[in-house]
Amino acid sequence: MNINLLGELEQIKPAVWETIQPYLPIAGPEQFCKMVADYPYRQGKYFRPALVLWATEMFGGQTEDALLTAAAMQLSEDWLLIHDDFLDQSEERRGLPTLNKLYGNELAVNAGDALHVVMWQVLTDNHKLLGSERCQAIHKLFGHTLLKTIEGQHTDVDWIKSGNLNITEADYLRMIDIKAGLYTIITPLQLGAIIAGRPHADLEKITEWGLYLGRAFQIWDDVMNLSATSHEQGKESGGDILEGKRTLMLIDLLKRCNHGERQEVVSIYAKPRSDKLPEEQKYIMHLMAEYSSIEYAKAAALDYSQLAGEAFDKATADLPSSHAKDILREAISFVVSRNR
Amino acid sequence: MNINLLGELEQIKPAVWETIQPYLPIAGPEQFCKMVADYPYRQGKYFRPALVLWATEMFGGQTEDALLTAAAMQLSEDWLLIHDDFLDQSEERRGLPTLNKLYGNELAVNAGDALHVVMWQVLTDNHKLLGSERCQAIHKLFGHTLLKTIEGQHTDVDWIKSGNLNITEADYLRMIDIKAGLYTIITPLQLGAIIAGRPHADLEKITEWGLYLGRAFQIWDDVMNLSATSHEQGKESGGDILEGKRTLMLIDLLKRCNHGERQEVVSIYAKPRSDKLPEEQKYIMHLMAEYSSIEYAKAAALDYSQLAGEAFDKATADLPSSHAKDILREAISFVVSRNR
Repeated sequence: MNINLLGELEQIKPAVWETIQPYLPIAGPEQFCKMVADYPYRQGKYFRPALVLWATEMFGGQTEDALLTAAAMQLSEDWLLIHDDFLDQSEERRGLPTLNKLYGNELAVNAGDALHVVMWQVLTDNHKLLGSERCQAIHKLFGHTLLKTIEGQHTDVDWIKSGNLNITEADYLRMIDIKAGLYTIITPLQLGAIIAGRPHADLEKITEWGLYLGRAFQIWDDVMNLSATSHEQGKESGGDILEGKRTLMLIDLLKRCNHGERQEVVSIYAKPRSDKLPEEQKYIMHLMAEYSSIEYAKAAALDYSQLAGEAFDKATADLPSSHAKDILREAISFVVSRNR
Repeated sequence: MNINLLGELEQIKPAVWETIQPYLPIAGPEQFCKMVADYPYRQGKYFRPALVLWATEMFGGQTEDALLTAAAMQLSEDWLLIHDDFLDQSEERRGLPTLNKLYGNELAVNAGDALHVVMWQVLTDNHKLLGSERCQAIHKLFGHTLLKTIEGQHTDVDWIKSGNLNITEADYLRMIDIKAGLYTIITPLQLGAIIAGRPHADLEKITEWGLYLGRAFQIWDDVMNLSATSHEQGKESGGDILEGKRTLMLIDLLKRCNHGERQEVVSIYAKPRSDKLPEEQKYIMHLMAEYSSIEYAKAAALDYSQLAGEAFDKATADLPSSHAKDILREAISFVVSRNR
């Protein structure tokens, strides 16, 4: 195989974007329309819609049948991110100030609501393309996954608000299995299987390797958040520490560090974002490096990627060779090699 | 006609509530489930779902066919209110503290998102009940109306945030034609017409009397917000003034009062909610009474109710007599007689 995954992602972008664009509101107040269209215009990596398209092809379906669903998948990310950025009080998104930073929390949340509705408008139009049965199955999967994702958000915010740092690795995995496993990986792949008209058994087979891949994806993402290059890619470097996000590095660090250090870490994490000093952020990063918590997380991501690859090979053994199958196999290594 | 509208509203409640309840999440974290179910459990008046059911019957359809749609209509109000209460920083809703007051803005907004998804889950199940064509028409109407409503919210919040008090009566009517006309009245009625399988022409006929009724409804609602009894009904008395809401009374007052008073009003409205003093709120209410702005708004609501009644009689002349038709005719007088 000789696959350039970033190149493949770039290739699918135009078709998904052209599907999204006509749905963005243009008739209302100028500022409103601008705000609703802002995150979609910033685009991002299009990893989730790409998974929908590749899975559709791997399972023997037609790419054209998958475009609306892929567009809705991307729109779901866009509206969830608008609300996430408010929840976390994030300041940068895809290289620009967040919507809450630009227009305030209220108008940003409201624009996210609009984009959420637009997502369902796109899904409604799937009727024409896919007929009632597949359209219903897709609606149900979106509803289920979004509800679980929002439930995961609740847990995430609640951990930060309540100052709870007694999170076990099992708690953490349970959360990322929803946020990354179910939402980012399994659902896009299952949508492809539905579009291709595959039976329920095929959807279930996706779960195992999808969960492993989701873990690899999320843990690697959290590791990359600490690296200097992440800033160039449109996120604040170490922003997760400012947000107080619970990550595998943090859980591992708290297990390894001494009592005095633990107390310091706890008191820094207890501060609201705006009170955390750059030195405090650096101190945490330093401890995470010193106690090899970053190495530990990296190794975990690589292990999960390995497990995902093995499970993928088993689960897809009876599917014919295809470019999409090769890309998906490659994506499993890619998620733990990207530097963003 | 001898119709007790409040009694009629109470009668439809159990069936709508029993339709909503099984959709509320019970499997996630306890606090999350409690928050998502909180506003639905508080119930409110069920005016919008009642309109769906009554319109279905008036247009010759079956009540059972309308229950899921009525439930979704109520759920839309519930999630919109969660987000509204955050946008306006409201403190009381249906006699209890708002969700943002109880749990903070972040978790409240997140719970609203969950309920928004639940609303679409209910609508998805309409397939089984109504088949693909009517279900699609209902999805499209929900999408259109919600997007316009959220757009109206933007304008509303923007007026308050930007401190813009140069709102004309025409601006105000444009806003309430969306929020009250389209969302509260026209859409529930049109949903009933769709469920009953009526042609597009019947949907259009609803628009005229629906708009008038929406104006009567909203203006009366704003008048009642100033009255002492509103507190007993679960809202803060005069809360609209604290929120800085643009109402017909305010627009009328600013037209009539003298220069000095105008400056005082403007400076009070420029303050954030938490800085407004009880005396300042009382002063505004006093001016609104002194300049007969409250009387002016009351008269306008009565006029619109009158116009709605005349337009209703014309629009529904060819529909056979029915209990639902009588109720809807009665509702037109009711909206300007309620004391809440």
